[in-house]
Amino acid sequence: MNLNFASDNTGPMAQPVLDAIVTANAGAAMPYGNDIWMPQVRDRIRALFAWPGAEVLLVTSGTAANALALSALVPPYGAIFAHKTAHIEVDECGAPEFFTGGAKLILIEGADGRMDPLALTKAIARLGTGNVHGVQPGALSLTNVTEAGTLYSLAQMAELTGAARAAGLPSHLDGARFANACAALGCTAAEMAAGFDIVSFGGTKNGCMGVEAVVLRDPARAWELALRRKRAGHLWSKHRFLSAQMLAYLQDELWLETARAANAAGQRLARGLRAMGAEIVHPPEANMIFARFDRATHDRARAQAQYGLEDDADRPLCRMVCDFTKTDAEVDRLLTLLS
Amino acid sequence: MNLNFASDNTGPMAQPVLDAIVTANAGAAMPYGNDIWMPQVRDRIRALFAWPGAEVLLVTSGTAANALALSALVPPYGAIFAHKTAHIEVDECGAPEFFTGGAKLILIEGADGRMDPLALTKAIARLGTGNVHGVQPGALSLTNVTEAGTLYSLAQMAELTGAARAAGLPSHLDGARFANACAALGCTAAEMAAGFDIVSFGGTKNGCMGVEAVVLRDPARAWELALRRKRAGHLWSKHRFLSAQMLAYLQDELWLETARAANAAGQRLARGLRAMGAEIVHPPEANMIFARFDRATHDRARAQAQYGLEDDADRPLCRMVCDFTKTDAEVDRLLTLLS
Amino acid sequence: MNLNFASDNTGPMAQPVLDAIVTANAGAAMPYGNDIWMPQVRDRIRALFAWPGAEVLLVTSGTAANALALSALVPPYGAIFAHKTAHIEVDECGAPEFFTGGAKLILIEGADGRMDPLALTKAIARLGTGNVHGVQPGALSLTNVTEAGTLYSLAQMAELTGAARAAGLPSHLDGARFANACAALGCTAAEMAAGFDIVSFGGTKNGCMGVEAVVLRDPARAWELALRRKRAGHLWSKHRFLSAQMLAYLQDELWLETARAANAAGQRLARGLRAMGAEIVHPPEANMIFARFDRATHDRARAQAQYGLEDDADRPLCRMVCDFTKTDAEVDRLLTLLS
Amino acid sequence: MNLNFASDNTGPMAQPVLDAIVTANAGAAMPYGNDIWMPQVRDRIRALFAWPGAEVLLVTSGTAANALALSALVPPYGAIFAHKTAHIEVDECGAPEFFTGGAKLILIEGADGRMDPLALTKAIARLGTGNVHGVQPGALSLTNVTEAGTLYSLAQMAELTGAARAAGLPSHLDGARFANACAALGCTAAEMAAGFDIVSFGGTKNGCMGVEAVVLRDPARAWELALRRKRAGHLWSKHRFLSAQMLAYLQDELWLETARAANAAGQRLARGLRAMGAEIVHPPEANMIFARFDRATHDRARAQAQYGLEDDADRPLCRMVCDFTKTDAEVDRLLTLLS
Repeated sequence: MNLNFASDNTGPMAQPVLDAIVTANAGAAMPYGNDIWMPQVRDRIRALFAWPGAEVLLVTSGTAANALALSALVPPYGAIFAHKTAHIEVDECGAPEFFTGGAKLILIEGADGRMDPLALTKAIARLGTGNVHGVQPGALSLTNVTEAGTLYSLAQMAELTGAARAAGLPSHLDGARFANACAALGCTAAEMAAGFDIVSFGGTKNGCMGVEAVVLRDPARAWELALRRKRAGHLWSKHRFLSAQMLAYLQDELWLETARAANAAGQRLARGLRAMGAEIVHPPEANMIFARFDRATHDRARAQAQYGLEDDADRPLCRMVCDFTKTDAEVDRLLTLLS
Repeated sequence: MNLNFASDNTGPMAQPVLDAIVTANAGAAMPYGNDIWMPQVRDRIRALFAWPGAEVLLVTSGTAANALALSALVPPYGAIFAHKTAHIEVDECGAPEFFTGGAKLILIEGADGRMDPLALTKAIARLGTGNVHGVQPGALSLTNVTEAGTLYSLAQMAELTGAARAAGLPSHLDGARFANACAALGCTAAEMAAGFDIVSFGGTKNGCMGVEAVVLRDPARAWELALRRKRAGHLWSKHRFLSAQMLAYLQDELWLETARAANAAGQRLARGLRAMGAEIVHPPEANMIFARFDRATHDRARAQAQYGLEDDADRPLCRMVCDFTKTDAEVDRLLTLLS
Repeated sequence: MNLNFASDNTGPMAQPVLDAIVTANAGAAMPYGNDIWMPQVRDRIRALFAWPGAEVLLVTSGTAANALALSALVPPYGAIFAHKTAHIEVDECGAPEFFTGGAKLILIEGADGRMDPLALTKAIARLGTGNVHGVQPGALSLTNVTEAGTLYSLAQMAELTGAARAAGLPSHLDGARFANACAALGCTAAEMAAGFDIVSFGGTKNGCMGVEAVVLRDPARAWELALRRKRAGHLWSKHRFLSAQMLAYLQDELWLETARAANAAGQRLARGLRAMGAEIVHPPEANMIFARFDRATHDRARAQAQYGLEDDADRPLCRMVCDFTKTDAEVDRLLTLLS
Repeated sequence: MNLNFASDNTGPMAQPVLDAIVTANAGAAMPYGNDIWMPQVRDRIRALFAWPGAEVLLVTSGTAANALALSALVPPYGAIFAHKTAHIEVDECGAPEFFTGGAKLILIEGADGRMDPLALTKAIARLGTGNVHGVQPGALSLTNVTEAGTLYSLAQMAELTGAARAAGLPSHLDGARFANACAALGCTAAEMAAGFDIVSFGGTKNGCMGVEAVVLRDPARAWELALRRKRAGHLWSKHRFLSAQMLAYLQDELWLETARAANAAGQRLARGLRAMGAEIVHPPEANMIFARFDRATHDRARAQAQYGLEDDADRPLCRMVCDFTKTDAEVDRLLTLLS
C-alpha cells in the first residue's frame, strides 16, 4: 500500500530543505537561534510579509505555533473566536487552553469551513465588554486554507479581521497551509497577512521536516513570546536546523513551488472525481478534497490507499490530501480505485 | 573564532544520525509516531533499560522532556525535590511549573551539583503529609551528569531514589547527558535507570539534531503522557525524523561512542588545566569543566574561543563543554589560550 | 425602588442562619474546618444524600463550588459536557478552565435550558476515545433548576447521567438551586443526587449568607479536593461561620422551607403573567421567570423594580427571580407594573 | 481546654463587625459589590492609604488576597522574591503558582523572618534580565508583621521596596497582620503602604469574620484584577456582608483598637516569658511569640492550652498567637502552665 493521501504531513522533505540540513551540519554553531542563518530568515519573512519590524520565532509543529501565537494575544480570562471546525478547537488536544492559561474558544458557525461574518459579529457582541461574569473578547483566529479545503478570499479575510478590529480585537492566522492558500488565491504573502497581527506560517506540511514560523507584526510582545516559547520547551538548542529548513523553504520561492504542486494534484483529483460524478462535499479549492462513497467503494480503495475516513454514515466521508510530491499517476490510480 | 566550547549543543549531528534522516526522507510515511521506525526505537530502549513494558515518547528538547516527565508524576499541588542548580530550576524558564499546572520546586543543597541525601530526607520530612496548607511531596528529580559536571555513582543515585521511594515518591532522571554519565561510570543504561520511574534520555547534546526520549517505566500513565505531549505541541507530524535519529543513535552503540569521545576530550582538557595549575572548581568527571581565571586571561582566550562565563567576580568562573567532535588539537589550542 | 427581582442572591439571610452566625461567634474556635459544627454538617449531608462515605467541603460561591467540583473530575486534557447556557459556560469568567488547568467545555443544545440526550450522546461519541489529537471525554455537568427556570425530572436526569455513565463519565450537578428543584419536583435530596458523583449543593441563593457544599460521593479524591480548595484560597480560617450557616440551613428542613417560599412566589408571578396574557418564554417551573414585553412596559416597570434584561430585541427579554422573602404583595405589585 | 493561642484566626468577630452583618441583613441588596456600603469602603481605604485612585477588592481569605494580588503583578514566566518562611511559600499550598499560571518563588534568606536586603539585591541580580532560559524578575512580596512575629521598620520596608523599584519591580505587602504592624510601629496606614504597589489588607485575623481587601495603588490593572477574582470564585454575590464587615472594621479605628489589644496581650505574654527566663526564639514585637520548652513542659501545658508546636527537637518550638480578645487572665494562665 503506497498510495498515501492521508495528509500532506505524510510527505517527505523537499530536496533543497534536506540539502540545507546537510549543509548546516558542518562544524559548530551557536545554539538557541544565535546561528548565522536565523537573521536571514527574519529578514526574508519581514520582507515577504511587508512587516518591517516583525519578530519571527521558529517552532516545529502547527499546534505549538498556534498556541504560542494565541498566548501572546489572549489573557487567561479571554475568548478566542474560531470556526467550529478549527484545528485549534478540534485537533490540538486543548493546546490553546494550555498555553493561554485557560482561555475559552467561542465557536462560530459557517458553511464549508468559513466563519460567517454575521455570526462572528454577533458572538463578539454577545460577550460584550465590561461584564465581569463572562470571559472577555480576546482575539479572532482564522484558518486559510480552511479545514474544509476551501479558501477565504482576500476580501473575506478582510471582512472578518475588520470586524475583529472594529471590536478592538487582534487577529491570528492559522497558516498551516499558508502557502497553499497564497498559491490558490494567486496573492502575495503580504496580501495574505495584511489583516492579521500574528501568523502561524507553516512549513511542515509543504516540504519541510518540522518548522513553522510564528510571525508577530508588532514586536511589543516579542520578548514575552520568546519566554513562552522557552517555557513550553520549544526553543531548540540546535536551532540552526530550524533556520536552515526555513531559509531553504523561502529561497527561490520553494514554498510557492511546492504549494502549487500540491494544489495542482488536488485539483486533478477534484476534476477526476467530478468527472466520475462523485459526491464532493466542500468546494475543493486547494489540495484537500472531501467526498462521500458507499462503504464497498471505500473497502476496495482502502486496501491500496490511505486517506482519512469518518465511517459513521451510510456513505462515509473521506478526506484526501495531496502533498507536493503527488504525481499525476498516483492521483489517477486513486481515482481508479474510487471509481 | 572557531573554538566552540560553549556547550555540547553547539556540535553537529553524528554522521549516522544525519544519514538516517536522509534515508527516512524517501517517500510517504504515516505521521505522529506511526512510522515504521518507532516500534524499533521502543523495543531497543525497553531492552536497553530492561524495562519490558516501558512507554517511550520522543520530543525535541530537554526542557520538553523534563517538564513532560514531571507532569506525569506530580499534581499541581505537588512538590518536586531538585538540586538548587538543577536545569529544571535554573534553565527552563519555569517549564515544570507550566507543564504541571503550578507545582513547586523545593531546592536541595549539596556540594558539586549533587543533592545531599540528608538534606533531601529533611526536606521531604519538613513538607510532611496531610498538611493541607502546604504542597504535597510529589517527586524527586535528579540530574546525572550533574550541572556541575560531576557524577552521581550508582550507589549515590540509589541512596537518593531510595529515600524518595521510602517516602512514597517516584523519581525522575534528567538524563540530558545520560550517555556521558553511563560512559564515565562504566555502567549499563539499565543500571543508570534502575532506581527511576521516568527518565529523560537525551540525544540532542550527544550527536543528534533534536531528540530526547521520555521513558516511562510503568505504562499506567502512558496515555496521559501522550495527551500532554500533544497538548504541548510536541507531537511531531513528520515523526519519522525523530524515530530515525533515535534509532541511529541507539544502533551499534553510537550513543556510547559519542559520549566516550566527548568525555575523553573533557578529561584531556581537565588534565591540561590541572597540569597548568588552573583553579578548577568542581571535580571534572565527564565532558564539562568549570574553572576560574583572571580577567585578562579570559579576555585573551575569548577573543578566539567561546565558552560560558559568569563575569561577576575578580576571577570569573567559566564553563567549558566538550561535544563528541572535539579533537585533541582543539582542546590543546584552548589550553594554550588559557595558559 | 424597593422591588428587587434581579436575582435570588439579592435576598437576605434567613433568620435561623443569621442566628447561627451570632451564636457561633462566642469565644475561640479551631480554624479550617476543625470547628465543632462541621462534623454535624458532614453527617447531615451524608444522611440527606444517602451517601454514607461522602466528603463535604464548604466554600462561599457557586462558581467556586462548581469549578472545584469539576477540577476533581476532569484532567486538563478533558472535556466537560454542559448545556450551552450553563452557568459554568456563561457566568463564571472561565473558572472551570482555570481550576482544571485548561479543560474544554463542549456545549450541548437543548430547548428550555435542558440538554437534549441525543445531542449529549452524539457529542460524547464525536470526541470518542483514543484520539490523541482531541480532548478526552471528562464529565457531564448538569444544572437543576436550569438556567431557563425549568426543571429536569428525575427521569430526565437519570437519562443524561446514565448516558454519561455508559461512556465511563462521572456527572456533576450544579445545584445552585438544588433546594428549589427538590421542592418543585417533590423529591428527596437523595433522589436528586442519585445519578451524580459530585454535587454543588447551594445555600447562598436560598437564605444563607455565602455557603455552598461540594459533596463528593466517593471519597477517593477527597484529599485532592481539600488541597485544591486551599490552593484556590477557599479554605476559610474562621470556618465555623460556614459550618454554622450550613447547619442552620439543614436544620428543621429550613432549606426546603425557604425554597418552597421562593417557588411559591415564582409560581404566583407566573400565574399572574399568564392571566394577563404575557409572552412567557420558558415554562416557569420554580422561582425564575422569563418573559418578553415591549420597551415601554419595561421602561415603566424598571422605574420601580429591578430585574434582569436583555435589551437587544423589539420585545426585550426579562428575567425575574423570586427569593424566599418575596411576599404576595411584592409579586402583585410587580405584576401591576408589567400590566 | 479553653485557652486557645493557636492562631489569631481562632478568635471571634468584634462586636461592631457582627452588628454590621446583622444590620446589613435587612431587605434586598444588589449583588457583586453593587451594594451601598462598598463605595464607602473604597473611599475610606483610599483615604487611609492616601492612594486617591486605588482600586479595592474584597475577598475572604489571606491566601486569596495574596495570590490575586500577585497574579496582577507577575506573569507566568515571572519570579516572586519572598522570605523563605513567607506565608505565600509555606502555607498557601501553591496558591501563588496557581493564580499566576506557574510563576516561581525565589526564596530570600534573612534572620527573624525579615529578608536580608543584600540577599534580595543579589537574588534579583542573579536572575538578571534578558536571559530567555530563566524566569524574569516579577515582584517583591514582603510580610509585615513577619511570620516570625517580628516587624520591619518603615526604613527597612523602604530599603527593600526601594531595591525592588530600582530593579523595575513592583512590591506586594502581605498585610494579614497589617493592623498589628501599624499599631506596633505607631505609624499610619499610609506610611505602612508607602512603598508598595498592591497590599493585602487583612481583617480576618483581627476581628472580622472573613474579609481582606486587595488594594491596588494604580488602577490600570483593576479590571484584570476584577476578572481574576471572579474567575477564582471569589466574587461574592451577597457581597454586602463583606462590605459591611470591612466598613465596621474601618470605622472609629476599630482595626487599630483590636490590633492594639492583640499586641498588648502578646507583649504581656512575652514579658512573662522573659521574666521566667524562657528561651524566646525571635524578638516578639507584636502578637505572636515563639519559644522553646522541654517536652515535659509542653505536655503539661498542652493538656489545657492550644498553640502551634514543631515537635522535632529536644526542646520543641511553639508558636503562641494572641487575638484581640485575649485577657490578662488568659495570658497569665498560659504563663503559669508553661512555668
